[in-house]
Amino acid sequence: MVTVALDCMGSDLGPEVTVGGAAKASQWRGAPQMVLVGDEAIVRRLLSVHEHDRDKIRIAHAPRTVGQMDKPREALDAMPDCSILRAAQLVKAGEADVLVSAGNTGAVTLACARTFERLPNVGRCALGAVYPTERRRGEKDDPFSLILDAGLTLEVDGNDLVAFAVMGSAYASRISRNPNPRVALLSNGSEAGKGTRAVVDANRRLQTVEHLNFIGNMEGMDIPKGTADVVVTDGFTGKIVLKMLEGVAETVMRLGRYAGDKSLRYKAGLGLLMPAVKKLRKATDWEQYGGAPILGFDQLCIKAHGRSTERAIGNAIKVATRAARTELLRSIRTGLESLG
Amino acid sequence: MVTVALDCMGSDLGPEVTVGGAAKASQWRGAPQMVLVGDEAIVRRLLSVHEHDRDKIRIAHAPRTVGQMDKPREALDAMPDCSILRAAQLVKAGEADVLVSAGNTGAVTLACARTFERLPNVGRCALGAVYPTERRRGEKDDPFSLILDAGLTLEVDGNDLVAFAVMGSAYASRISRNPNPRVALLSNGSEAGKGTRAVVDANRRLQTVEHLNFIGNMEGMDIPKGTADVVVTDGFTGKIVLKMLEGVAETVMRLGRYAGDKSLRYKAGLGLLMPAVKKLRKATDWEQYGGAPILGFDQLCIKAHGRSTERAIGNAIKVATRAARTELLRSIRTGLESLG
Repeated sequence: MVTVALDCMGSDLGPEVTVGGAAKASQWRGAPQMVLVGDEAIVRRLLSVHEHDRDKIRIAHAPRTVGQMDKPREALDAMPDCSILRAAQLVKAGEADVLVSAGNTGAVTLACARTFERLPNVGRCALGAVYPTERRRGEKDDPFSLILDAGLTLEVDGNDLVAFAVMGSAYASRISRNPNPRVALLSNGSEAGKGTRAVVDANRRLQTVEHLNFIGNMEGMDIPKGTADVVVTDGFTGKIVLKMLEGVAETVMRLGRYAGDKSLRYKAGLGLLMPAVKKLRKATDWEQYGGAPILGFDQLCIKAHGRSTERAIGNAIKVATRAARTELLRSIRTGLESLG
Repeated sequence: MVTVALDCMGSDLGPEVTVGGAAKASQWRGAPQMVLVGDEAIVRRLLSVHEHDRDKIRIAHAPRTVGQMDKPREALDAMPDCSILRAAQLVKAGEADVLVSAGNTGAVTLACARTFERLPNVGRCALGAVYPTERRRGEKDDPFSLILDAGLTLEVDGNDLVAFAVMGSAYASRISRNPNPRVALLSNGSEAGKGTRAVVDANRRLQTVEHLNFIGNMEGMDIPKGTADVVVTDGFTGKIVLKMLEGVAETVMRLGRYAGDKSLRYKAGLGLLMPAVKKLRKATDWEQYGGAPILGFDQLCIKAHGRSTERAIGNAIKVATRAARTELLRSIRTGLESLG
């Protein structure tokens, strides 16, 4: 049985939403065990007003909370009894299998770094994020590619990119049920010699990694096409690219201004298109999708967006549960160890 | 009177197109003087079939050509009498004011590096590129922002980014006639402390540069919005971003697949939108727009796209002429010198 440690505090919408999401999740068929970490009085009161399965939920008291605007290092130094550290310690101690938090990203990452160990051959960690593409893939015919790093490690070397590729491939095959995901390095050109020193070095080394479906470099236009299932890049570029994608729906809405066409014909066309555009906008809001894995530690953490709704918290719990059930960490470790 | 040295050889479409473009340009009101550099017999024969103003055109013989697929260093070593080197030497010697080429980008840049000097406070050079945004700006109400570097210098330090900002601002104010262009650093977050070490360093220093309208960091979603008139970034990120923008029109066309909507309603809407989409596609084909400046040398070079049509060659000649007439280089030099 999988146990999820859920940091209930520190999200933008407050513990109402995290506890509400967990209460709903407890009623699923095949729900995991959950430890709700936070101020016990608050969590208990919130549970009392949400229907839930009492056998699936227990509470771990943590009196203090890191706020979204707090400076991570100072906050964790000042509050060793805060919910995110307590939740990470439960995972470290084996009382839970996986950590879920919608708190301050910097504080969540730092809590992991202070509590967990890094996996072999990992210099720096990566945040994975999914985004929708034109292509369908995997068992569930889903449109998502994984991009990593999505903003955690801004500057990388070849080692980092190789580790990101191996970890991303394992994640995509377990979570997206895509048994042989295509992995590519994002670069300024598709040829193997194109790119920063880190990219050129990683390209050379990834060609020899076994059990990895490395398809080489990819370019910017391949991002929305979905040429790769796993897009490997540094966190600086990854974050910029994801923010551009978020803007795609808005660009379509304003296509008229963009193309200088303000005709009635254009407006009529846009009206007919609107339902698809709204769908697109929802699909490109990548941060709403279930949560992003922090990869590189010997324990797993799923970072849900700070503004997560109950549904988003539920999705993060679902992803975390699947990751634990499919032994994602073991698969990542095996891949990393084989790098030698 | 401005003189443009035009490398006639080495473009994808051959000297027919470059000579044809120059012949047309010679008939403009206010046309510059032009030196057509290339194989004299070929250029002369092509001129004989294109109507042109003989007073505006002369030929400088260069017997050999660097191909688009040639390795720049080896090609320039083997062919000191090639057209791109000869054209650069004419500019160096003061026989022309500005260089225009649609040849192999690496060879053009290397020919500049071997022939020209770098300006003060410039460590590495930048290729500027314009792309269309939602915003209108400048005297001519144009929709373009300038992004640099567009792929020449993949890895940068803070000095490079500061120099790119100063050069890009001067270029936008002269060429786009936008007297006080807003300059921003592309980063993973809008706050001054966000970014790679190079971005954080450049942000700190750009705040104190006089006569520069520095608006701070910008994020990926600001790119299509046109929040900044000059987008400053490294060549790796810049190239990826530009390639993504090129894909925007295609993404719109395939929005149906993207959003999973294949309804008739959707198809009807797309049909009505098509003229605007085609306009957008044309506008986002940034490489067709007149040519991209190579900035950082003590002489100016406008790099036209390898697949330039006669019209694109004409646009590049127009931009080069305006750059020389407005004394762009002097303005860039003054800005760089004031960095101290």
